[in-house]
Amino acid sequence: MTDIQRLSTSDSDFDTRLDGLLAWESVSDDRVQQIVAEIIREVRARGDAALLDYTARFDRWTPATPADLELPRARLEQAWNTIPAEQRQALEAAAERIRAYAEHQKLAGWSYRDPDGTLLGQQVTPLDRAGLYVPGGKAAYPSSVLMNAIPAKVAGVAELIMVVPTPDGELNELVLAAAHVAGVDRAFAVGGAQAVAALAYGTETIPGVDKIVGPGNIYVATAKRAVFGQVGIDMVAGPSEILVICDGGTDPDWIAMDLFSQAEHDEDAQSILVSWDAGFLDRVAASIDRLLPTMERAPIIEAALRARGALILARDLDDAIAVANHIAPEHLELSVADPESIVGRIRHAGAIFMGRYTAEALGDYCAGPNHVLPTSRTARFSSPLGVYDFQKRSSLIMASAEGSARLARTASVLARGEGLTAHARSAEYRGDVEA
Amino acid sequence: MTDIQRLSTSDSDFDTRLDGLLAWESVSDDRVQQIVAEIIREVRARGDAALLDYTARFDRWTPATPADLELPRARLEQAWNTIPAEQRQALEAAAERIRAYAEHQKLAGWSYRDPDGTLLGQQVTPLDRAGLYVPGGKAAYPSSVLMNAIPAKVAGVAELIMVVPTPDGELNELVLAAAHVAGVDRAFAVGGAQAVAALAYGTETIPGVDKIVGPGNIYVATAKRAVFGQVGIDMVAGPSEILVICDGGTDPDWIAMDLFSQAEHDEDAQSILVSWDAGFLDRVAASIDRLLPTMERAPIIEAALRARGALILARDLDDAIAVANHIAPEHLELSVADPESIVGRIRHAGAIFMGRYTAEALGDYCAGPNHVLPTSRTARFSSPLGVYDFQKRSSLIMASAEGSARLARTASVLARGEGLTAHARSAEYRGDVEA
Repeated sequence: MTDIQRLSTSDSDFDTRLDGLLAWESVSDDRVQQIVAEIIREVRARGDAALLDYTARFDRWTPATPADLELPRARLEQAWNTIPAEQRQALEAAAERIRAYAEHQKLAGWSYRDPDGTLLGQQVTPLDRAGLYVPGGKAAYPSSVLMNAIPAKVAGVAELIMVVPTPDGELNELVLAAAHVAGVDRAFAVGGAQAVAALAYGTETIPGVDKIVGPGNIYVATAKRAVFGQVGIDMVAGPSEILVICDGGTDPDWIAMDLFSQAEHDEDAQSILVSWDAGFLDRVAASIDRLLPTMERAPIIEAALRARGALILARDLDDAIAVANHIAPEHLELSVADPESIVGRIRHAGAIFMGRYTAEALGDYCAGPNHVLPTSRTARFSSPLGVYDFQKRSSLIMASAEGSARLARTASVLARGEGLTAHARSAEYRGDVEA
Repeated sequence: MTDIQRLSTSDSDFDTRLDGLLAWESVSDDRVQQIVAEIIREVRARGDAALLDYTARFDRWTPATPADLELPRARLEQAWNTIPAEQRQALEAAAERIRAYAEHQKLAGWSYRDPDGTLLGQQVTPLDRAGLYVPGGKAAYPSSVLMNAIPAKVAGVAELIMVVPTPDGELNELVLAAAHVAGVDRAFAVGGAQAVAALAYGTETIPGVDKIVGPGNIYVATAKRAVFGQVGIDMVAGPSEILVICDGGTDPDWIAMDLFSQAEHDEDAQSILVSWDAGFLDRVAASIDRLLPTMERAPIIEAALRARGALILARDLDDAIAVANHIAPEHLELSVADPESIVGRIRHAGAIFMGRYTAEALGDYCAGPNHVLPTSRTARFSSPLGVYDFQKRSSLIMASAEGSARLARTASVLARGEGLTAHARSAEYRGDVEA
C-alpha cells in the first residue's frame, strides 16, 4: 500500500502536522554562495573570457570564439522546421492560447485632472531588455520557454535574450523550437551562475538585461538572488505543489493521476487532497495503489507522496476552504460540482483549476494562464508570472499654477514638520505665484 | 563657489564620468549580515523574550511586559488630537489626496470565455496582513507613514501592523498622528532587525504578516532581504535622487532649490540637472552659490552636491531625454514649456514631475502619487509603491467538457515530449470524454 499520510482536520495535532508537511526552507549553503560569488566576480571582471572558461569546465565543451556561444535565429528556426509536425502544432496551439490570455493582462496608463487643472496619472512602459534562463539537460522544458517568453513579448520588451546551457554541447530541439515560436530575439549556449552574471552585467558578447526570469538549479537561483537590485528577477521557486479539494464526485482515478502529475516532478514535490467524504479518500487511496505501478516515474512519485503528500479529511466544505487558504497553494483544483460558487472564498492560490474537467496539466501546457506560479505559501503575497512583470509604472504629476499654490501650503507644513526646509522652500516658491 | 561637477554629453569621457557618478552598490558587510542573522534566529526561537532583550539593548528602555510594546489605538488618536491644528489639517489633506490617487490603482479581476465555454480569468485579492516599518529618531517621517499605509488600506488589507522603534522611549507625535489618519490597525514600539523578524515570523504578541514595507537603516534593510520568501518585501532603497531636465525657461532659483531638496536628505543623495542652455546652467550655478549659505542643512547639501551632483550640458532635448533614459531616475522633473509632448518618450523613471510648477517636493508630501519610488536605476524594471503591491492575482481556469478534450490533445503531446507521463495521462482522462 502506498505510504501517503492520512490527516483529519479534527485531529488535535492537525495544525502542527500540516505545518510540518508544508515546511520548506530554501537555503543555499555557504559553499554554494561562495562559488556563485566567485563566478559573478569573474564574469564582471573578465567578461567573455570567463564565460568560455566556465563553459569548458561545467558544460565540457569549448567554443572557438565567444561569438560561437550564440545560437543564431536560423538555428532556432531550423529546430522549428525539423521537429515532428505533431509537436510543432502542439507548440503553436499552446503559444497562441498563452498569448491570447497574456493580452488580457497588459497594464495600461491612466490619468485624471483635479478641478484646478492639475494632472495626475500613471504611465506604463515595457522593460527594454529581458533575459530568460532555460535549464539544459533532462529538466529542459519547452513549455517553460513559452510561459516565460510570451508575456515578455506581449508586454513589448524590445529584446528578449535566452540563455541555455548545452552540457557536452547537446541541444534540446524542442526548447529551440519553442524559443522560435515564442519570439526569442537572441539565444546563447551558456548556463549556470555564469549565464546569470552575464545577463546581469553584460559581457562583450552577451548584452546586459533589465530583468532575469526562468527556473534553474541551486547555483542559478543563488546567482539570481545575488544580482537582484542590479537587475530585476522573478521569484525564486520552491518545489511544485498541488492541493485538490474534491466533493467526492470526481472519478478517483482522475484525482489520483492529478496528484501523480505533481509528484512526478521531483521527490520534494507536494500533492495534497482534501475532502469531507471519507469514503472518497479511501477510493483515491485505492486508485493510487492500483495506478502507481503503471507509472513511468513511479519511484519519484512514490517518494514525493511518502515525504510530502497527504489525504486530508475535512469536516465540510468551509473547513476544506480554510485549509486551502492556510496552505496558499501554487495549484488549487476545485474538483466540485459548482466551483464558481466557492472560488470567491479562495483568498490565496497561484492558479485555480475549477471543475472536474480542469486537470492541472491542462494549465501547465496550454490553457492560457502562466505555469510560473508562487510556491511555498508565497501566494499569500505574490502572483503568477505575467505581462505585468515585464512592464513598469511611472507616476505622473503636472500641477497647474493654482494647484501648485494649494499643494505648496500642505507640503510646506509637512516638510517643516520633518525639518526638511529645502523641500519647504522649493514648494513655497511655486506657492508664491498665487500669494 | 559650490563644488558641483560640470559635464557635457559631448565630452569623450562623458559616459564613463556619468556612470561613475551613478555608481552605487548597497552591500551589507559580513558583520552586519551576521548580527542580523543572529537577531532573526533569536526572535524565531524566543519570541517576545528576545524582543524585550533587544529593545533594552538597542533602544535603551525596558517594557515591563511584552504587552507594553503595543501602542494602543487610543495612543495614536491622542497624538492626532494634540498636534497643532495646522499639522493635523496638512496630514488630513495629504492623506485624502494619497487615497484618491491610490483608488485609481486598484486592480480588478476579469474573465472571458472561449467559444467552447471554457472560462479563463484572473481573481484579485488583498493581502491578509501587512507590516509597516517606520524608522524612529531623527529620520522619522510622518509622510512615509501615509505613503506606505494608505495603499495597503485601499487594497483592502485586513490588518496593517506598524512597528516603530522608540529610542530611549521617545515617541514622535507626528508619526503616531499619521498612523491614526492612515488607518494603521495596530502599532508596536519595536524597531531594528528584531522588529522585521517579529513581523516575518510572529511572536506571542506581534502577529506575523504576509509582506513588510517601509524604509529603515542597514540592519532593517539586511533583515528584510533575509526574510524575503517567508514574507514579501518592498524594494530595498538606495539613496534618493532627482534628475531635472530644464529648457532654460524656469527661474534658476527654483531649480537650485529643487536640487537642494534632494541633496538635503543625506550626503549620498543625488541631484543632477540637464539642459541644452549653457547660460542657464551658469545661472543655476550662481543660484546655488547664493542660496546655499541660507539653507539650514547647508553642510549636507554641499557634501551631496560635491560627491554626487552634476550640471550636464546636453546637445538638445533629444540628447537630454537619452540621458534621462540611461539614468532611469527615481524623480524626474520635466521643467519645460510643453512637458506633455515629451513625457511619452521617457522610458524609465519612478515619478515624473511635469512643468515648471511641479516641484518634486509637492509629490513628496501631498500631490497624491506615492513617494516610495525605485532608486539606483531600478526604475528600468520596477514601479512606485502602490495599491497593487498589496494585492495579488490568482489565475482562473474552468474547462468545459469540450474545451478539456481539445486542450488535452495539446497537453498530452507536450507532456510526452517532456517525458512527464502522469501529466499526459491526467490530461488524457479528461480528453476521453469526447473520444
